[in-house]
Amino acid sequence: SFSRGMQTVTLIPGDGIGPEISTAVMKIFEAAKAPIRWEERNVMAIKGPGGRWMIPPDAKESMDRSKIGLKGPLKTPIAAGHPSMNLLLRKTFDLYANVRPCVSIEGYKTPYTDVDLVTIRENTEGEYSGIEHVIVDGVVQSIKLITEEASRRIAEYAFEYARNNQRNSVTAIHKANIMRMSDGLFLRKCREVAENYKDIKFTEMYLDTVCLNMVQDPTQFDVLVMPNLYGDILSDLCAGLIGGLGVTPSGNIGANGVAIFESVHGTAPDIAGLDFANPTALLLSAVMMLRHMGLHDCGNKIQTACFDTIKDKKVLTKDLGGNSKCSEFTAEICRRIQDLD
Amino acid sequence: SFSRGMQTVTLIPGDGIGPEISTAVMKIFEAAKAPIRWEERNVMAIKGPGGRWMIPPDAKESMDRSKIGLKGPLKTPIAAGHPSMNLLLRKTFDLYANVRPCVSIEGYKTPYTDVDLVTIRENTEGEYSGIEHVIVDGVVQSIKLITEEASRRIAEYAFEYARNNQRNSVTAIHKANIMRMSDGLFLRKCREVAENYKDIKFTEMYLDTVCLNMVQDPTQFDVLVMPNLYGDILSDLCAGLIGGLGVTPSGNIGANGVAIFESVHGTAPDIAGLDFANPTALLLSAVMMLRHMGLHDCGNKIQTACFDTIKDKKVLTKDLGGNSKCSEFTAEICRRIQDLD
Ligand SMILES: CC(C)[C@H](C(=O)O)[C@@H](O)C(=O)O
Ligand SMILES: CC(C)[C@H](C(=O)O)[C@@H](O)C(=O)O
Repeated sequence: SFSRGMQTVTLIPGDGIGPEISTAVMKIFEAAKAPIRWEERNVMAIKGPGGRWMIPPDAKESMDRSKIGLKGPLKTPIAAGHPSMNLLLRKTFDLYANVRPCVSIEGYKTPYTDVDLVTIRENTEGEYSGIEHVIVDGVVQSIKLITEEASRRIAEYAFEYARNNQRNSVTAIHKANIMRMSDGLFLRKCREVAENYKDIKFTEMYLDTVCLNMVQDPTQFDVLVMPNLYGDILSDLCAGLIGGLGVTPSGNIGANGVAIFESVHGTAPDIAGLDFANPTALLLSAVMMLRHMGLHDCGNKIQTACFDTIKDKKVLTKDLGGNSKCSEFTAEICRRIQDLD
Repeated sequence: SFSRGMQTVTLIPGDGIGPEISTAVMKIFEAAKAPIRWEERNVMAIKGPGGRWMIPPDAKESMDRSKIGLKGPLKTPIAAGHPSMNLLLRKTFDLYANVRPCVSIEGYKTPYTDVDLVTIRENTEGEYSGIEHVIVDGVVQSIKLITEEASRRIAEYAFEYARNNQRNSVTAIHKANIMRMSDGLFLRKCREVAENYKDIKFTEMYLDTVCLNMVQDPTQFDVLVMPNLYGDILSDLCAGLIGGLGVTPSGNIGANGVAIFESVHGTAPDIAGLDFANPTALLLSAVMMLRHMGLHDCGNKIQTACFDTIKDKKVLTKDLGGNSKCSEFTAEICRRIQDLD
């Protein structure tokens, strides 16, 4: 049948510029003959039984079935009391690893060249436990929760990632000189897991030292694994090194094969619908997705066409320094894909 | 008498390269006729009554009297179980604000120019509370403690600093979207204090956003105020932007007028005693100290001589890209000071 070999992906176009960059990705996938069938869903949280926020059942059902999602930006929280959609999705699908490859893009100038690193962030606990108390008036505590299980899981993911992506080293990032017990536990698990990956070099570094060294010479870093908040910070810092969130892909890996790939930039409501948006971050996230699904050739083809378009500098969106529309940039990538065939 | 108008400063030369860079600073102060009398002390922790770590009584006594300290690098912790000297000094003298002006140095090339910002870090609480527990086997929590008092105090310091140093804006940095209560309290205090400084622009930013924007364009930032851990990270990141810890000054401000200024680089044991060390970070910290003591003219003279020496590029230590010894670099700064007179 026509659908032979096709795999379903749940598409969450999102808000603002989300729909137009999603359309761009779909067009490019079509040009690349990617064996993907899209199932479009809206994930905006609703109040479920008992008043708990949840994503709509048909979106949940689609993701449970397809296992793979591609997500544009969501305007969130949409109102006071509304949960962060990012946090809700992470929780709903136990998306325990946030993965961000940061690779310098030839032709898109930043103060740095040859950046080629990956941040792997523990995505479920740490400073994001949500547990906070007022002790007495004017004294508040927030609890950072680190577990053996989540630490081992993220460490294993990082080493597997390194091995499967021909990377040579994993660095665990911590402040165990200050948080001896919590970051200490995280670090211990990383060390234990490292024992099983003798082919991968393992190092440990303080977060502050990493930040300092990162802005001086990011080329010294390879795969970086770290607790939740440190990952939040470093993943954005590293995105900055290569040109910002508009060109940085992101993937959230969950248990049981579930994964959601997403652009992490905002919804840019000011330019929404005007065909000005840059689809690169969502497209490169979709390329990560293809690789995750084992469709390496297809992913490589799309990535090459995208990078060549940027390197060539003739057809670029405004934020990339050009004057072209989103649809023109998209068409140029499609044209190059056809040329590659 | 000879000592008329002289002020005493407690000098803690420190370990490794500490003594030679301290000597350099003393020589330069002499050339600048700085009205400072040095009182040299060793602060390495000893075990006091009850087994508590404390700094030696004669060092404590000197600081209590002089109120002002200048400190080189300390090798710390010197052994397992030995406390971090940084943390012990912060605690002993309630050094609640860590201040680091990060200013691009002409002639010392980094990927950034025109950086001119100041990080102000809350230095006493937050993630550094030291309170941690094992909840059950494999589950650990660390407590981040934020108080109204410490938050107000650091916010007030930041706005006072901005006003006294002709700076236009203060940005509070936080993750109150995640740590609503703790960072929320910190932020609320900043907002309240901002009300009393209508001449200073107040903004708020997420830590991750600051990191991303910082590496893209640091010139957009002015005075930044933040909780302890965020300050640890950002102050080192910003030091990286202007050339690293070898050229970045630091000051720790305490209650009751006490303050300790220090270079935050390491002891560099490999080159200790070889006359290779770069005294710039300690010297610029000493310049901050002079300004703190109201000795602006003297501080400016020394800073000009130091920056001119670097800009001129003829007499530089190895780490600054030259071939000169610490003593030659020092002599060149002294010579320029005499020329300025
Ligand atoms: C929006 C916010 C909850 C989130 C975070 O802090 O994790 C964001 O910064 C991210 O990295 O996805
Ligand atoms: C040595 C360590 C305790 C310290 C910290 O984390 O505060 C250091 O990084 C600093 O910034 O002084």
